[in-house]
Amino acid sequence: MSYFDNFMKANKAYVDLHGTEHLPIKPKTKVAIITCMDSRLHVASALGLALGDAHILRNAGGRVTDDMIRSLVISQQQLGTREIVVLHHTDCGAQTFNNDEFVSQLEDRFQVDLGDTDFLPFADIEASVHQDVQLLKDSPLIPDDVVISGGVYDVDTGRISEVK
Amino acid sequence: MSYFDNFMKANKAYVDLHGTEHLPIKPKTKVAIITCMDSRLHVASALGLALGDAHILRNAGGRVTDDMIRSLVISQQQLGTREIVVLHHTDCGAQTFNNDEFVSQLEDRFQVDLGDTDFLPFADIEASVHQDVQLLKDSPLIPDDVVISGGVYDVDTGRISEVK
Repeated sequence: MSYFDNFMKANKAYVDLHGTEHLPIKPKTKVAIITCMDSRLHVASALGLALGDAHILRNAGGRVTDDMIRSLVISQQQLGTREIVVLHHTDCGAQTFNNDEFVSQLEDRFQVDLGDTDFLPFADIEASVHQDVQLLKDSPLIPDDVVISGGVYDVDTGRISEVK
Repeated sequence: MSYFDNFMKANKAYVDLHGTEHLPIKPKTKVAIITCMDSRLHVASALGLALGDAHILRNAGGRVTDDMIRSLVISQQQLGTREIVVLHHTDCGAQTFNNDEFVSQLEDRFQVDLGDTDFLPFADIEASVHQDVQLLKDSPLIPDDVVISGGVYDVDTGRISEVK
């Protein structure tokens, strides 16, 4: 039993409502949003996005990693975005573990050497937003005039609070 | 002018409809979906996901990178997911450039040395899905009994086709 089959059935119903308009490859708002993979955050609904509006980048924690920088550079240089929003959230999986213990458990379980791998957990949500906004500001590949905002999404209420 | 302010206004309306139920941190379907940041794909709608159903991971192209493996390990080991869907799409930004030329343009524009950085463009969508599914299967950190499926989303029709 795979859930993929269920998703395919749901997708058939979605296609019936979708229409066939071709939207441009460049996002209308010129915004890229970096956030967490968490299942309780549906980014388009929570931010009022229509199809075609904004790039949505998601990993564990919504952290600014090399892969997120790679993606943002493509977003900006190839697809015209000029603004970034970093959105972390309450009750995050990245707050559920300590890196050293986690690495040690994985090395035991999978018989691998993970060296100094950082799974990027954090304790304080606002501090993690500040840290990731700063990483973007410090990146030589993100132009200085790109507008960068930070926020925290509450998974219980759906509310976003700005982090200044 | 920043679009973040617009998103905050839209979010106020969203909060009014959201309710305050606390959903579990572990996704109900135990699925993690890896897909692209593209603005024309709203994953929850296209796959029929309710809040709390599945992890959604997104980068440029929906490629399997070290950061996606990091995120999946947290998803599986901390948050209980046991299935992965790799979903690429038509008319992808990762099909709009050649890596060598892109790196060269960036080095000129930003006066940096990017070495052998790979921005992970691709030409053939089905081949890129196969390649990324294989990377997951080959990863020592993804258990062999995890179910992995691949698909392509059509940005014009909203339809997902399975890639076998």
